[in-house]
Amino acid sequence: TSNNGAASVSTGTQPSPYAPSDFLSRVSDFAIIESTLREGEQFANAFFSTEKKIEIAKALDNFGVEYLELTSPAASKQSYEDCQAIAKLGLKAKILTHVRCNINDAKMAIETGVDGLDVVIGTSSILREFSHGKDMNYIMEKAEEVITYIKSQGVEVRFSSEDSFRSDLVDLLSLYRHVDALGVNRVGIADTVGCATPLQVAELVRTLRGVVSCDIEGHFHDDTGCAIGNAFSAVANGCTHVDTTVLGIGERNGIVPLGGFVARMYACNPDYVKSKYNLHALRDLENLVADAVGISVPFNNYITGYCAFTHKAGIHAKAILNNPTTYEILKPEDFGMTRYVSIGHRLTGWNAVKNRVEQLDLKLSDDQIKEVTAKIKQLADIRPQTMEDVDRVLRDFHNEVNNLEAPVASEKESSGIASSSSRAQQAL
Amino acid sequence: TSNNGAASVSTGTQPSPYAPSDFLSRVSDFAIIESTLREGEQFANAFFSTEKKIEIAKALDNFGVEYLELTSPAASKQSYEDCQAIAKLGLKAKILTHVRCNINDAKMAIETGVDGLDVVIGTSSILREFSHGKDMNYIMEKAEEVITYIKSQGVEVRFSSEDSFRSDLVDLLSLYRHVDALGVNRVGIADTVGCATPLQVAELVRTLRGVVSCDIEGHFHDDTGCAIGNAFSAVANGCTHVDTTVLGIGERNGIVPLGGFVARMYACNPDYVKSKYNLHALRDLENLVADAVGISVPFNNYITGYCAFTHKAGIHAKAILNNPTTYEILKPEDFGMTRYVSIGHRLTGWNAVKNRVEQLDLKLSDDQIKEVTAKIKQLADIRPQTMEDVDRVLRDFHNEVNNLEAPVASEKESSGIASSSSRAQQAL
Repeated sequence: TSNNGAASVSTGTQPSPYAPSDFLSRVSDFAIIESTLREGEQFANAFFSTEKKIEIAKALDNFGVEYLELTSPAASKQSYEDCQAIAKLGLKAKILTHVRCNINDAKMAIETGVDGLDVVIGTSSILREFSHGKDMNYIMEKAEEVITYIKSQGVEVRFSSEDSFRSDLVDLLSLYRHVDALGVNRVGIADTVGCATPLQVAELVRTLRGVVSCDIEGHFHDDTGCAIGNAFSAVANGCTHVDTTVLGIGERNGIVPLGGFVARMYACNPDYVKSKYNLHALRDLENLVADAVGISVPFNNYITGYCAFTHKAGIHAKAILNNPTTYEILKPEDFGMTRYVSIGHRLTGWNAVKNRVEQLDLKLSDDQIKEVTAKIKQLADIRPQTMEDVDRVLRDFHNEVNNLEAPVASEKESSGIASSSSRAQQAL
Repeated sequence: TSNNGAASVSTGTQPSPYAPSDFLSRVSDFAIIESTLREGEQFANAFFSTEKKIEIAKALDNFGVEYLELTSPAASKQSYEDCQAIAKLGLKAKILTHVRCNINDAKMAIETGVDGLDVVIGTSSILREFSHGKDMNYIMEKAEEVITYIKSQGVEVRFSSEDSFRSDLVDLLSLYRHVDALGVNRVGIADTVGCATPLQVAELVRTLRGVVSCDIEGHFHDDTGCAIGNAFSAVANGCTHVDTTVLGIGERNGIVPLGGFVARMYACNPDYVKSKYNLHALRDLENLVADAVGISVPFNNYITGYCAFTHKAGIHAKAILNNPTTYEILKPEDFGMTRYVSIGHRLTGWNAVKNRVEQLDLKLSDDQIKEVTAKIKQLADIRPQTMEDVDRVLRDFHNEVNNLEAPVASEKESSGIASSSSRAQQAL
């Protein structure tokens, strides 16, 4: 079935160690609720104009996310008008807006023409009161009023608490069973402060999965670095919808990043992920949002970080050159990216150098390649060597051992690159 | 006991959902093997001079990590000399170097005077052969020769495979039981390609914990965003040592970042983490390494990212102002950082504005504060408002409703800030 692929396709040669629970897994049947235009607007220096919101919405739709979540129309006049504008675009993605659990916000949201409402209990202080047994009736009544109204308008409704992982479990399950009976499309669990761990998430989702029949949405903050691990753990245990933002931007240091989540799910089932999402569009999408909020894409960003597919260690090079999957769980070409094997450094190995020698069509024995590798290491102990530096060392060595005259410099070699490698040799 | 604190101290009001397994947890009894000077040197554009390595080693020692791991002295002449130099510094941290499983590398490493050797089976192709049942005797013999030699020299020895999560489980356990019997200090499990998930890690560590009596080290790459989640999952299930690098730099997009791992462990047991590590030194340490490799600290870096403690959403502000733990799992002051509540934006709420009104000692009723909040939202729909912009709006509104003359501009208000807020009001 489509639901039993957890981590078995490309992450192991043995059955998944949690195979007994795989009947709940949704790793090959999940949807993304992309919240760059809601959670992302809570990022410290985010300010999206209407035009920028529309540009981002179209880019996300082109990438293929199933839902877009927008800031509540109750937040400001412009937020209201932007909801209307994006709802009218006719995108393939369903348009949601995120509202507090009160009837006025819900009515305002319905007016904007969105496809669904993500309802949240507004403050954790109310939730705290609720979780201590106070105001239970008030919350239940309010939820019933708002949910019944939204359903009467024929749009989707999700109901979520805040700070689910620090709430009383029994009260949480009681509330969710109640709203499930009212016919919500999804209940949401939210790690609002970023304190949850993957094992806690697995337990809560499995428990909730046995209590409600509706879909389950997960919202995970990254304060302690577990957002992606928690989202995966949720999906592997029955969560159907995951909230993301581009580059993870959001309140404080944000939530599950779209690119990282896609990388994680691709590692489980590449074909499924490639069939749903336009992975080649990821880099442009991330650059668009980074520019819009005035940040750089982090160096170690999943997939599009500039080092994601750079291999450097000498002991990795032979295997990578023979079979990239030995050290890559993601195929760079599936994301429109390219692999790079760095060889001009002190950690280089003779297998990587041999590969370059063959690319340059030079004739050297293995012993000669080991000798020139030692020379490259010696140079790289002084300063990092560019590929052009390395090529010049290889050509010179090749000419020397074969008693050839130095060739007339080609056009490329007579450029600044050649003089740079000359300096490196002088430094010997 | 010190081992039962998994996730119960500050992440929940209820017992940990995985309480039955807590007897294995090491969340309050773990050590960090800091590998910025080994794994970190495999980062695409890392090139550390001897002086820089010594500066980083001292800074890591000051932070309080238990071990430093250095590049193999077999990598290059300078690598050899740098091992010697750092081993002679007399740091509190133990000095390790990372070597292939062969006797020549081991002898060279011993010569440098380090406190221990982290031995790794050199290539995944050998491991693949091994895991298919070939070369088992060869590996066992080689491991025995190298381990026996290292122990005869009176230093620590760790033995690790590569790519543990894609290896045959029985072969892996057989090998580790064998080297455990030889008296290694630690066996290592390595997610070399970054494919493992937190639930897989939990299973493997628990299984291994039942097979070996020595310590267990975990090494986790971040290709699919689970490095910190995997490291936590390992420690919560019996792993004793975790490899980190500053900012996570390493091969491809790196491994578990020191700051993020510390944030995760602090969330479980703040007192234990504060007692071991000099948390106020984290920011300088990260800046030192970022400068050394020519990168910026990512915007969403755990703890020291510039938005980590910035609260923006209106519905969070009241609770944060009353009790920061409602939306913070990390206390910024424990890390020498400060909290910031952003209010000059369209998502602002009247509770945040009320707090600012009180700070400015202005006299406004709740209804008046709601009215001026609407005005701030209106301005912020046009462009983001600085704190100075907001203060000017509040003072002007206060004077208007109290029929006061506009005060003579103070020194601060007569600066460029005031004219900037004037522009914002004109834009109305």
